[in-house]
Amino acid sequence: MKRLTLPEDKAREIAESLWYRHIDNTVIAVVQDYETKDVLMVAYMNKEAVVKTLTTGLAHFWSTTRKKLWMKGETSGNVQEVLEFRIDCDRDSVLLIVKPRGPACHLGYRSCFDNVKISPA
Amino acid sequence: MKRLTLPEDKAREIAESLWYRHIDNTVIAVVQDYETKDVLMVAYMNKEAVVKTLTTGLAHFWSTTRKKLWMKGETSGNVQEVLEFRIDCDRDSVLLIVKPRGPACHLGYRSCFDNVKISPA
Repeated sequence: MKRLTLPEDKAREIAESLWYRHIDNTVIAVVQDYETKDVLMVAYMNKEAVVKTLTTGLAHFWSTTRKKLWMKGETSGNVQEVLEFRIDCDRDSVLLIVKPRGPACHLGYRSCFDNVKISPA
Repeated sequence: MKRLTLPEDKAREIAESLWYRHIDNTVIAVVQDYETKDVLMVAYMNKEAVVKTLTTGLAHFWSTTRKKLWMKGETSGNVQEVLEFRIDCDRDSVLLIVKPRGPACHLGYRSCFDNVKISPA
């Protein structure tokens, strides 16, 4: 599968079509592994993060705690190559289908949801 | 796989352990199909929605637009049986592994992310 890299104008057009209704004018981004289909993490994206993601093919998010744009893996090296970008019916959430270059979780787990699992006894 | 139904006190203990840092004191909830592993939808859960979900084994959410608790499928009949409840490393997002009794999307799609998919040309 090929990495998604759109021209700037096409990326802006898509970014403009979303409904940034969450904290700091964002959409919710769910990140899913293209191979295992595991949900890796959840984060926010503002318009600029959407444009950066679509033009570079690397997942970018908006940090609502640090109030800054960040690229996944910018310090850890564990970037996420984006193979597909899906938009939900309300256009306020997106789903990134990615090829991860290392664990998504800062605790070292492959997925941020690998740590606590509650199932029937 | 068995539906998750916890006693009220255990459900409350888990609900109390989450970080409700989003709109209206909520966590973000990602819903994933247990069989296909497709991401079906994203919604918010407040503490009460978490308790309801864990005690009944049916997905409940908080509507930030209607400002009310709702059960998925309460009008459509398309309930989501919860088989597993996962908590992310920041405890501000949860992942529901569900067996859906019909399409998740109000447009009739199985997933809310089935409508718009952007991939490399």
